[in-house]
Amino acid sequence: MKSAKGAITAPKGFRAAGVRAGVKSKVSEKKDIALLYSEVPAKVGGVFTKNLVKAAPVLYDMELVKNGVAQAIIANSGNANACTGEAGMADAKRMGALVEEGLGLASGMALVASTGVIGHSLPMDRIEKGIADALAALADDGGHDAALAIMTTDLSVKEAIKTYTWEGHEITIGGMAKGSGMIHPNMGTMLAFLTTDAALSAEMVQKALREAVDTTFNMVSVDGDTSTNDTCLLLANGQAGNDEITETGPAYAAFLENLIAMCIDLAKLIARDGEGATHLLEVEVTGAPDVAAARTIARAVTASSLVKTAIFGRDANWGRILCAAGYSGAVFDPQKVEIYLESSAGTEQVAAAGRGIAFDETKAKAILAEENVFIRIDLRQGEAKAKAWGCDFSYDYVKINADYRT
Amino acid sequence: MKSAKGAITAPKGFRAAGVRAGVKSKVSEKKDIALLYSEVPAKVGGVFTKNLVKAAPVLYDMELVKNGVAQAIIANSGNANACTGEAGMADAKRMGALVEEGLGLASGMALVASTGVIGHSLPMDRIEKGIADALAALADDGGHDAALAIMTTDLSVKEAIKTYTWEGHEITIGGMAKGSGMIHPNMGTMLAFLTTDAALSAEMVQKALREAVDTTFNMVSVDGDTSTNDTCLLLANGQAGNDEITETGPAYAAFLENLIAMCIDLAKLIARDGEGATHLLEVEVTGAPDVAAARTIARAVTASSLVKTAIFGRDANWGRILCAAGYSGAVFDPQKVEIYLESSAGTEQVAAAGRGIAFDETKAKAILAEENVFIRIDLRQGEAKAKAWGCDFSYDYVKINADYRT
Repeated sequence: MKSAKGAITAPKGFRAAGVRAGVKSKVSEKKDIALLYSEVPAKVGGVFTKNLVKAAPVLYDMELVKNGVAQAIIANSGNANACTGEAGMADAKRMGALVEEGLGLASGMALVASTGVIGHSLPMDRIEKGIADALAALADDGGHDAALAIMTTDLSVKEAIKTYTWEGHEITIGGMAKGSGMIHPNMGTMLAFLTTDAALSAEMVQKALREAVDTTFNMVSVDGDTSTNDTCLLLANGQAGNDEITETGPAYAAFLENLIAMCIDLAKLIARDGEGATHLLEVEVTGAPDVAAARTIARAVTASSLVKTAIFGRDANWGRILCAAGYSGAVFDPQKVEIYLESSAGTEQVAAAGRGIAFDETKAKAILAEENVFIRIDLRQGEAKAKAWGCDFSYDYVKINADYRT
Repeated sequence: MKSAKGAITAPKGFRAAGVRAGVKSKVSEKKDIALLYSEVPAKVGGVFTKNLVKAAPVLYDMELVKNGVAQAIIANSGNANACTGEAGMADAKRMGALVEEGLGLASGMALVASTGVIGHSLPMDRIEKGIADALAALADDGGHDAALAIMTTDLSVKEAIKTYTWEGHEITIGGMAKGSGMIHPNMGTMLAFLTTDAALSAEMVQKALREAVDTTFNMVSVDGDTSTNDTCLLLANGQAGNDEITETGPAYAAFLENLIAMCIDLAKLIARDGEGATHLLEVEVTGAPDVAAARTIARAVTASSLVKTAIFGRDANWGRILCAAGYSGAVFDPQKVEIYLESSAGTEQVAAAGRGIAFDETKAKAILAEENVFIRIDLRQGEAKAKAWGCDFSYDYVKINADYRT
């Protein structure tokens, strides 16, 4: 297995760069312009925020992705270019055009993404300088710099990679993501850029991305706020040399399995790095009547402020878990539900038949003291299951968000 | 206007008591048993949580309220009697039966409510002693003690009153409520008990209560968690001497207007006393295509963790307000929206045509420094409007909920 560091340039034929343009602030040393380039035109799939208020680059990309082909992605952090009107749309187009010009690409081959504060115009002079620097810095091993450049309040860089062999061809799938607050995607995460050297038709790229996003990024919640900028893009440039995947079947299934595995890695990194988080929370609902119910309940539990504060306080307050399941909107019989708490410190059942049972409070507290906490809710009324990821709710979430903008 | 203190015993013919039974803890000095009694049988209306997981007393009351008549309410704080199975239902029935016996009432005339921690059996020995004490303590001026006895993490007692004269009869409507966390009612609030000496048919009591709850308690959000115990009951005992209101018309309209005004007072008290809150947040959506859209948007903005932390930080981060409107699910054109911030320190417009405008940051900060903050969102695409109430999100919310149970 290759290292996740620089994952998006690990598949054959991709280059990237991450530079500092001063978008975050004139004095910050942090990188804030990321550029990703495929040496050949790549098939592209994209899924975007369902927020009615969509940032200019989201609206721009939604049109371009319909072409099914793209060769570059330019992204900035520090400013979301959202709620910026026609001027914002012109700025997004200008970012794409500068990249197309610099790389000698046809118009519409560069996708654009932004993340950061809402409602301020982009500092285009600094952006333009940054794009020029990024074009000059493009490198085969530039993936890690690009991953650094899309971070905002993220504390950890988020990269993941999977490789597998299909009919003698080694196929690599790499991804990078950012996301820390305003995370309750109704599409993907804030920003996730995925690359692969596998050959797939544009239709299959879109289908695989949609399927992967639904069970991974769309099952992450940090604070219940769905962003205006959520964007997940997958570029597949075919450089691995496999026969192009044009339909579902074993080749598609193998690709999808690896794509999902990589997206789960990124989803967990996003959840664990939720603003102020001290725990990664994984919630699995089993025994559900159908997958939709399992997903709805898993998401409601990870999104509950009361469950999240209880995990922060290492309090085995299972009543809040069942309460969140109850108001989720899913239809189930609460009288059958079993709840288990689990971590590397062990497993403890805390509820059966929808009621509390005598359990070892000391052990439960020890389980919740671990960094990775797993809640399993067995509905005992079917075969379907789903997982969701979140984090606990700490003082620092409030601190970070009480003065993010100013 | 009569004082709100002891409001539920202000209408003619009601008595109440609030005593300490040690449900909260054996050592706490706080009252935890509330008893309300109408000297004559009263028409009753009730609305209850829509959480699929309903506490035993909720299930018990839902059946009894169908009778349309009741004469007493017994409530305890400190234990929700939720997720307690058949034993919990037997305990709820026993609470009602003890009150009926003590007051010489027919079976089914005493309603039951509980609030507190989920999943623990009621300490029935202490409850029974408390009920006996409450029966002995019933008094014409016992309303305030009862209001104290339903509090859990509430910092303020919540009472409200309205009086009006109809055809020579003075009519009084009194109410008490509790609610501080797990507040995102999909019916009413955690617990709200309303009394009136107006004469109405059971059908009109239920109709008026439903209408009032929809525009008041159901528009309050503290943390997005809908409780298992939400219960709102209205007892109308007819002692004011007015002609019984049996249909909609001027008499019904006057009653409803006063009932809504009183419920708004209680709703604001609940929102202001949200766990850890430092601000009361009132959000009004105007210019909406329909009332449903206005309500949906107003609720989403008051429930947004990012809006709430921004208010705590006195940050005029209007982008988060528009973002929350965008993901609310309501359909509207974001390009027309105007946003205003308002308090006793003044008014400042911060967005127009869906975009940021130059505004006075110092003044905006001063506006948000006031205790009562008002956000007005003018969609400019219709005539409908709605209000919702909430609070900011502070460190103390996390503190209170990280170790509520243990």
